[in-house]
Amino acid sequence: MELGKMVELLFHAPAQETWARTDLKVSFSNEEKTVTVKGFYDGGNVYRARFLPENKGHWEWRTEGIVEETGSFECVDTGLKGRVRAAGTHFEYANGDIYRPFGTTVYALAHQEDALVGETLESLKHSPFNKVRMCVFPKHYDYNHNEPPVDPFEKDDKGRWDVDRPCVLFWQRFEHILKKISDMGMQIDLILFHPYDRWGFSRMTMEENRRYLDYLLARLSAWPNIWWSLANEYDLFPHLKMEDWFEIEEYVAAGDPFHHLLSNHNCTALYPFERENVTHCCIQSSWTEHAGEWLREYRKPVIYDEMRYEGNIPHRWGNLSAFEMVHRFWTVCVSGAYATHGETFVNDEGVLWWSRGGQLRGESPARIAFLKGIMDELPGPVEPWEENPFGGVEKMTEEELEKQKEESPVGYCFARGIRAMEPLHRSAWISGETIIRGRCGKDVFLRYMGRDCASSVEMALPEDEKYRVEVIDIWNMTRTEAMRDASGRIRVELPGKEGMAVLAVKA
Amino acid sequence: MELGKMVELLFHAPAQETWARTDLKVSFSNEEKTVTVKGFYDGGNVYRARFLPENKGHWEWRTEGIVEETGSFECVDTGLKGRVRAAGTHFEYANGDIYRPFGTTVYALAHQEDALVGETLESLKHSPFNKVRMCVFPKHYDYNHNEPPVDPFEKDDKGRWDVDRPCVLFWQRFEHILKKISDMGMQIDLILFHPYDRWGFSRMTMEENRRYLDYLLARLSAWPNIWWSLANEYDLFPHLKMEDWFEIEEYVAAGDPFHHLLSNHNCTALYPFERENVTHCCIQSSWTEHAGEWLREYRKPVIYDEMRYEGNIPHRWGNLSAFEMVHRFWTVCVSGAYATHGETFVNDEGVLWWSRGGQLRGESPARIAFLKGIMDELPGPVEPWEENPFGGVEKMTEEELEKQKEESPVGYCFARGIRAMEPLHRSAWISGETIIRGRCGKDVFLRYMGRDCASSVEMALPEDEKYRVEVIDIWNMTRTEAMRDASGRIRVELPGKEGMAVLAVKA
Repeated sequence: MELGKMVELLFHAPAQETWARTDLKVSFSNEEKTVTVKGFYDGGNVYRARFLPENKGHWEWRTEGIVEETGSFECVDTGLKGRVRAAGTHFEYANGDIYRPFGTTVYALAHQEDALVGETLESLKHSPFNKVRMCVFPKHYDYNHNEPPVDPFEKDDKGRWDVDRPCVLFWQRFEHILKKISDMGMQIDLILFHPYDRWGFSRMTMEENRRYLDYLLARLSAWPNIWWSLANEYDLFPHLKMEDWFEIEEYVAAGDPFHHLLSNHNCTALYPFERENVTHCCIQSSWTEHAGEWLREYRKPVIYDEMRYEGNIPHRWGNLSAFEMVHRFWTVCVSGAYATHGETFVNDEGVLWWSRGGQLRGESPARIAFLKGIMDELPGPVEPWEENPFGGVEKMTEEELEKQKEESPVGYCFARGIRAMEPLHRSAWISGETIIRGRCGKDVFLRYMGRDCASSVEMALPEDEKYRVEVIDIWNMTRTEAMRDASGRIRVELPGKEGMAVLAVKA
Repeated sequence: MELGKMVELLFHAPAQETWARTDLKVSFSNEEKTVTVKGFYDGGNVYRARFLPENKGHWEWRTEGIVEETGSFECVDTGLKGRVRAAGTHFEYANGDIYRPFGTTVYALAHQEDALVGETLESLKHSPFNKVRMCVFPKHYDYNHNEPPVDPFEKDDKGRWDVDRPCVLFWQRFEHILKKISDMGMQIDLILFHPYDRWGFSRMTMEENRRYLDYLLARLSAWPNIWWSLANEYDLFPHLKMEDWFEIEEYVAAGDPFHHLLSNHNCTALYPFERENVTHCCIQSSWTEHAGEWLREYRKPVIYDEMRYEGNIPHRWGNLSAFEMVHRFWTVCVSGAYATHGETFVNDEGVLWWSRGGQLRGESPARIAFLKGIMDELPGPVEPWEENPFGGVEKMTEEELEKQKEESPVGYCFARGIRAMEPLHRSAWISGETIIRGRCGKDVFLRYMGRDCASSVEMALPEDEKYRVEVIDIWNMTRTEAMRDASGRIRVELPGKEGMAVLAVKA
């Protein structure tokens, strides 16, 4: 058995009355600890139990319930990276390698016919993306009205969904797809609930939700690369209150022995990311300049998991220019956060990437690959580089303000005026005043100019180091050396157009 | 004498001790009313008094003070448009014609050498602009450090500015320039105070300010095309409190017998435009999508008199792309408000349009001319076309909300979520959700798509009229007929790129 790779045990026993909750547990023990997982029913007389070994060495296991078996195995380190977890405001694999999410969105990927799923997987293989946001349940929304090939539950004799009998074929097919995505080295940001539904899966009772989750958690928790996204737009479920979401959150966290990444995705109001089970901020927002503030506020990784999509549909959330999509990625990534792609181009086949998959048609993925390549060169994750200048003004003491009054009376008035503004006005009103910049310690300094067309920019590098400075054109994907052996306060010449970045790397 | 044209009377008397306040008044009377103006000293033994006749027919005048004279004249209507005034949320000339401001900014226009002033005026002549924002006092700021050719005051024997002795040469030269601008049919948005100063004009006492204003008001109030902009960035004067600005506002309003347009320009906090003397909202803000809200809030004309400038300087307020400048004009104008241009390109001569004038180098003026041409075709000013959809959600009653709950549970949750958001979040967070559209009664419907790249847009035209529909490319300046005889709900095909507008005109 390999460190960080799912172990699966196979058992045989007669089918029970309920398939969702199986009377089968397996405890895995090494010298230090015991981890208990639940088995799940997989059709016929087949039961399985899955375990994710995260320690090397000797493991013993023992079942409890409808079968009684024991066994053991040796777990060796074959160099797998393992499960991704949050580390500060960033992510890392179990082996300590940095994981930088560059996700994409294909909500109903698994609910398409096989040929289309195959096409989608082929597209993913040639894309820069390393995370897929996708739903367990089928989705009903504009451009996506097809029936899923398989339903997630069997029906009872009255034709209603029987949550006690998850459809084994559904799950086998679903996992078959997840496996192919996993084999490409991608993370799966699995959406457990969503409101765009005509079948009733979004309107199940809390008890039904729990039974659904029982099966899902038993089946999927040992996958090393799965994340729990409790919902897409959790705040659009008419029947669920905030307390219900807290209960779902607790239930998922308690039911997952491997502590996968867990968050919840909003339409309007952010989920309370400060909650202990929440590992990172999953944000729907176009307010990309606010990334730094959210990082400061929550001190967890921030992913803009929806910030509108590249495309041309009439819905405004789906008609960003490719440049704007790329611009948002740079804004977010240089601020030390992460972003997720989506694509919504009208086409004759009616297959839009964001929901059904198919082919990527846009111009942003190539530029996202370019950005990813630059980020992958960095020696560490991007951290904030100084404060937002307004942040500084905000936090000035009265004494500092008085001093400013002497030194620069007009600057004093400006500071006073900014302090008196509602925080959001500073962004919307005096727009573009948030400076987008990040650093990796003293090794790397990054400044993204956004839509500013400056002919030059000043940067204050450390005085005691020397840097190689490049000017990056995010759209044309060029990197041009601007300076060598630069130190201290420098002025970098720029071409005076949108989408320029400056990268200073310690020589 | 012509209706709407300044009348000037010339008198001779010895110079008095103070030149700022002259013991000379002239009352102009017709059958209905008497208007009293103050005379002003114009050097040597010359005094002048100026009057703006806004009624036709017989006028008699009579002096009071250091000269005693009487006279009369006939005022005839020669078809002049007359003074611009606010009319609802728009502007009109005294003759009832619509005035649509398309302004530009040349702060220190009058404080440059004659050759440069001449070049600037020549540029203005070939520009689309019909309003110039410019300062009375010289300006000290980056890219603009030159001494003015003439100072506005004489100095006393201790070398201090003597506000009792305005420099007559300064005013004659200043008016010479104003005259040339006026002869091009332009409005002059005259900035009475500004904080970017090394000479001390921004730090005069309130008594000194009043004396300065006495002379200015006596001299300039009868110009038909002058507007009072109390300040540029009134909130950046360390020594002036809000009450001081109110006093200045009252003083200017009371000292101007002809009730010119009057407003005050902010850096951070808007001036309280609800005040009675304030005729329109003069706004510095990049928040162009908020135009409709400010129109609703103040019910006065709204001009974005500063919304960053086209250019490439490192200062972020001066490096918009030309597209962004044009995009902001369209956003504002289609919302029923008005916008002002400025340009800040680094150049070898160090002459940046925004402060010193010279030549226009940017690509936005041609596009602003294109927009102005379209606006000038409209039968009336642009009014809001329905409400902001979020405005609607906000204002829903609880009953309407409950009804929504039945009809569209997800829509209900969305409405509830939007209502719970801070208003500014709606703009910054779910950005681009403000729909930019305007109308002229049932004659014209306008929709601006902004940076959205939609491949089509739906519009709901009146069912009982027929419209010719054009698709406008704001950057390439093309107008393409899309439909004839369109009625009711229509879908207009678009090319799926930024900067498109749709214009529907009643056949």
